[in-house]
Amino acid sequence: MVNRKLYENSLDPFFDPQTIAVIGSLKEKLFGGYVAIRSLIKAGFKGEIYPVNPSYREINGLKVYPSIKDVPQKIDLVLIITGARSVPGILRECVEKGVRAAIVVSDGFAERDDEGRKLQEEIIAIAKQGNLRIIGPNTAGIANPSKGLIPNPYEMGYEKVKEGAIAICAQTGMVNPQAFPYGDLGYGVSKICDFGNKCDVDECDMMEYLEEDPSTKAITLYLENIKDGKRFLKVSKRVASRKPVLILKSGRTEQGAHVSTSHTGSLAQDDRIFDAACKQSGVIRLDTFRELFELPKIFTHSSLPKGNRLGIITFTGGVGVLAIDEGAKYGLTVPLLSSKTRKRLDAIFPGLGNRIVDIGPPMAVVNNYMSFYSEILKIVTTDPNIDSVFNVIWTGPSGEFMESYLKIYRGLQGNQKPIASWIYGPRLDYTYEMARQLEELGFPVFSDIEMAIKALGLASQYAKAKGGD
Amino acid sequence: MVNRKLYENSLDPFFDPQTIAVIGSLKEKLFGGYVAIRSLIKAGFKGEIYPVNPSYREINGLKVYPSIKDVPQKIDLVLIITGARSVPGILRECVEKGVRAAIVVSDGFAERDDEGRKLQEEIIAIAKQGNLRIIGPNTAGIANPSKGLIPNPYEMGYEKVKEGAIAICAQTGMVNPQAFPYGDLGYGVSKICDFGNKCDVDECDMMEYLEEDPSTKAITLYLENIKDGKRFLKVSKRVASRKPVLILKSGRTEQGAHVSTSHTGSLAQDDRIFDAACKQSGVIRLDTFRELFELPKIFTHSSLPKGNRLGIITFTGGVGVLAIDEGAKYGLTVPLLSSKTRKRLDAIFPGLGNRIVDIGPPMAVVNNYMSFYSEILKIVTTDPNIDSVFNVIWTGPSGEFMESYLKIYRGLQGNQKPIASWIYGPRLDYTYEMARQLEELGFPVFSDIEMAIKALGLASQYAKAKGGD
Repeated sequence: MVNRKLYENSLDPFFDPQTIAVIGSLKEKLFGGYVAIRSLIKAGFKGEIYPVNPSYREINGLKVYPSIKDVPQKIDLVLIITGARSVPGILRECVEKGVRAAIVVSDGFAERDDEGRKLQEEIIAIAKQGNLRIIGPNTAGIANPSKGLIPNPYEMGYEKVKEGAIAICAQTGMVNPQAFPYGDLGYGVSKICDFGNKCDVDECDMMEYLEEDPSTKAITLYLENIKDGKRFLKVSKRVASRKPVLILKSGRTEQGAHVSTSHTGSLAQDDRIFDAACKQSGVIRLDTFRELFELPKIFTHSSLPKGNRLGIITFTGGVGVLAIDEGAKYGLTVPLLSSKTRKRLDAIFPGLGNRIVDIGPPMAVVNNYMSFYSEILKIVTTDPNIDSVFNVIWTGPSGEFMESYLKIYRGLQGNQKPIASWIYGPRLDYTYEMARQLEELGFPVFSDIEMAIKALGLASQYAKAKGGD
Repeated sequence: MVNRKLYENSLDPFFDPQTIAVIGSLKEKLFGGYVAIRSLIKAGFKGEIYPVNPSYREINGLKVYPSIKDVPQKIDLVLIITGARSVPGILRECVEKGVRAAIVVSDGFAERDDEGRKLQEEIIAIAKQGNLRIIGPNTAGIANPSKGLIPNPYEMGYEKVKEGAIAICAQTGMVNPQAFPYGDLGYGVSKICDFGNKCDVDECDMMEYLEEDPSTKAITLYLENIKDGKRFLKVSKRVASRKPVLILKSGRTEQGAHVSTSHTGSLAQDDRIFDAACKQSGVIRLDTFRELFELPKIFTHSSLPKGNRLGIITFTGGVGVLAIDEGAKYGLTVPLLSSKTRKRLDAIFPGLGNRIVDIGPPMAVVNNYMSFYSEILKIVTTDPNIDSVFNVIWTGPSGEFMESYLKIYRGLQGNQKPIASWIYGPRLDYTYEMARQLEELGFPVFSDIEMAIKALGLASQYAKAKGGD
């Protein structure tokens, strides 16, 4: 018998269930309940799993129940993967059973046609009357890697989503593990949620939930519309004052908004109003899909920058100049290093003690380069004139420096200034491996010079708005 | 005896030399003449290589000459990798020997100090008097993969740079093969040139050379300054009317420009003037370093789009909406497909014949998906209402669709409408491999949704400005 816990927030049963029922198709295909159950088992979910399907008796060593009502245990969360028309009946049974949380993966609702729209209204009514929360319909579901909760209905191709401090929520399944290569990356996520058609649980519910979630340090949202503008303004303002909230919103243009409406079956808003709301509430608005996954990484560092003074360590002057230009967009300045720092750098190599610390020239001529590099990194990151550091790493033709770099960064763990790195080199395999390992040590790596600078710029702006606590 | 060719353009000896002398250090390190010679041999350079160094007799099976004057052959190109102070003397000997082209890799010139600045003035004078052209100093050199001409003074970690239609020229070595993973990519380059300190050969010389280079379809430049504004305006206008010219310029901000000046030892200009010049001459101005390598790919397609009407094939509605929003920035519109096309698509799967062709829903349910996909791609790309196509590819959990996709695209080769693809999936290895192979077939792949749309938008704008020839 499970020792039952009490859920304080109505979303707790979604992200920390002790019992899950998976209702629907159990065929061994690339999509469905069979895949979701196997994914839960592989990810190490510690709770109990109850497959529900009248045509099966056992699957993956688990007893299959003909209906949710036949399951002997209390059920915290159900995952429904059936035809849309069966969903209302199943939800009624769930209510009778006392279930409080349902993820409706099934599609064919408001996004499809009039019949689907009516079905969606029907399930909303059932949920309201029955004190049941719904994520979806038309969703790829959720994930909470810290609990081994990866009930992914699509085949992923890997088993583990790394545990981390970024929550990624979206009105699309493009952020879920079957679409994004979490297994290949060095950073982790705290929660993933695809809102789907967003018939019940929405951006405000998730922001409120994540506000109190101790494992979440930064909240990223991809939205096509806002369900309740007034509530959004209130909630986002409060949450953004505690944790950075980064939002990419599509449907910015008239045509985009029109198509968005038909695609998720929900109304889009005037983009200017949304933009004003973000400014008022301190929400960081993103520009590209890639930024959803990259920019929040800067906020998982232990502390925010104390100011806007950027230090630059580069392998080539050109990249330093690009970084200065880009930094200006976000109010970053590149100061002279302190005279003490400059003297120490010049002692390592003449001319190194400059505004941009260009390690290319010494690299090309000195023999014991890596020991110099270690010193350079320490000197620059501890300079009192610097609040954050943009750091360029060249992996070299055969990855020969990787181990030395990683050793140096291990020694730098616990430093209090954000360091954003950009890694380049002649071999993709080495640059990706180096990025993965560096992120595992807690140092975020960005795919572009400009992305790294934007991350530092946003962190500096966020820290300033927050008032430097 | 080499059957001597006549050079029509003063830059011909740089990019198509029959004889090269490599002057300077021959130590087996990660940098130097030894590396450059080995790189030439590995890349399959067909001409003759003459190492020059008084301390060696033979290297890599090649006779080493004590000075350039001792080489019995006429020399088309010299690569100089010595201390800066030796360079003027060597160049004087080159002039005496009748050499017309010198790449001065050596640093320690105007970018270093006053002595270096004087040395640079000295070599400029020697070049002018001696009818010698110089690339550099302080350069990582050039490349012409079609001739096996990869005289890279830095260890690269791979042997081949793929031959293609994009010329990449920069005031930095960051575009050269030791810094960028050309070996791992599916697309190729026609020429690479690092201008270094740009004491002689500059952006205008290269544009004029590439204007007449039949293997170059698109010209990309990274610049920190413009040497001669009037000439730039004239040359770039003429060249851009024949081939797309894409420029990323740093030193946009005051601080960036100031630092840039000290770094390359050359004067920066007011960025607004440069911006106006680009608009006047039809030059495409880029925003990020990554764009230098990605956006020109769209111009290597056989033809430009005939208009601004974008077709979208996606795996999820959300990405379609983002694409519509982004396209609006560049004047792209997403029209209704022709009624014939919509009927044909709806016959494949109900609802598929929409403004955004969302192949997600059929993918999840049909069994013979790939044969449907092949038909969908052909139908959309041949729709008379569409001028270019944004295409999303999902590689799947085990790369199981890759072969089928590639087969379909092989069948699509020779199609006359640009197709920009974005590939995503749960496994990085599959998405990279798929991208590489698709680009080898001539279909450009972009790292972002937004980058793919920008590429199509720029191609549409360029075609319109060019007047639709």
